[in-house]
Amino acid sequence: MPSIFSRIIRREIPCHEIYRDDRVIAFLDIAPVSKGHAIVVPTEECDFLHQLSDESAAAVGRVLPRVARAILAATGATSYNILQNNGKPAHQAVPHVHFHVIPKHADGSGLGIQWNAGQLSSHEGATLASMIREQVGR
Amino acid sequence: MPSIFSRIIRREIPCHEIYRDDRVIAFLDIAPVSKGHAIVVPTEECDFLHQLSDESAAAVGRVLPRVARAILAATGATSYNILQNNGKPAHQAVPHVHFHVIPKHADGSGLGIQWNAGQLSSHEGATLASMIREQVGR
Repeated sequence: MPSIFSRIIRREIPCHEIYRDDRVIAFLDIAPVSKGHAIVVPTEECDFLHQLSDESAAAVGRVLPRVARAILAATGATSYNILQNNGKPAHQAVPHVHFHVIPKHADGSGLGIQWNAGQLSSHEGATLASMIREQVGR
Repeated sequence: MPSIFSRIIRREIPCHEIYRDDRVIAFLDIAPVSKGHAIVVPTEECDFLHQLSDESAAAVGRVLPRVARAILAATGATSYNILQNNGKPAHQAVPHVHFHVIPKHADGSGLGIQWNAGQLSSHEGATLASMIREQVGR
């Protein structure tokens, strides 16, 4: 089933568009966490980032810096976060890959992050990296 | 001044590498927020995402899904967040562009997010989108 983002891409639902090419669209989030909060979306219909084609993933990656530059210039922000959520437990709300660009303003508005870092032992790191390398296929 | 990531890229400092090509390297975070927490880094030396070249940005974007797939396969996680921080107020710790891939596990470990959403009025949205579109140059 097409998500609300697919309907925005097809212009069936309006948005405050800020960028569009064949593979990528970007628009303002209508429930912004801070001023200038935007969403960058591949036109490819895909729930999760790990399902996305190489071509779409590269196209979205390429667009992120230019959207960020434009948002900084327009809002005066100098700091920002890029956030991309996959799965409901990871706060994904719309089942269509999307990257949030969230300015962090001087008034403190922006993304709040809770960061409970552990420590990776040398043995654990070597074992896990080897397992992941095997999967990444090179 | 080259960051610690530049020294990792040049193999002057060891890491638990999981991916490498000419433009991108990925390795495990040694202070992981959850099991499988990895960092994807362009080899281009650049403090912030908005300074990154199109080529490097596309290359990093292309690698994110394949690194995510491998981490999910190796750890058994199904949810995850991609986070990329720019500027100290936005929690950037190392001054070299990097994307965190952070699995969200069944035990709740992973990225914590505080999301204080507002509302974008139609007028405000139209004005802001127009300002950003002008900057994005198309």
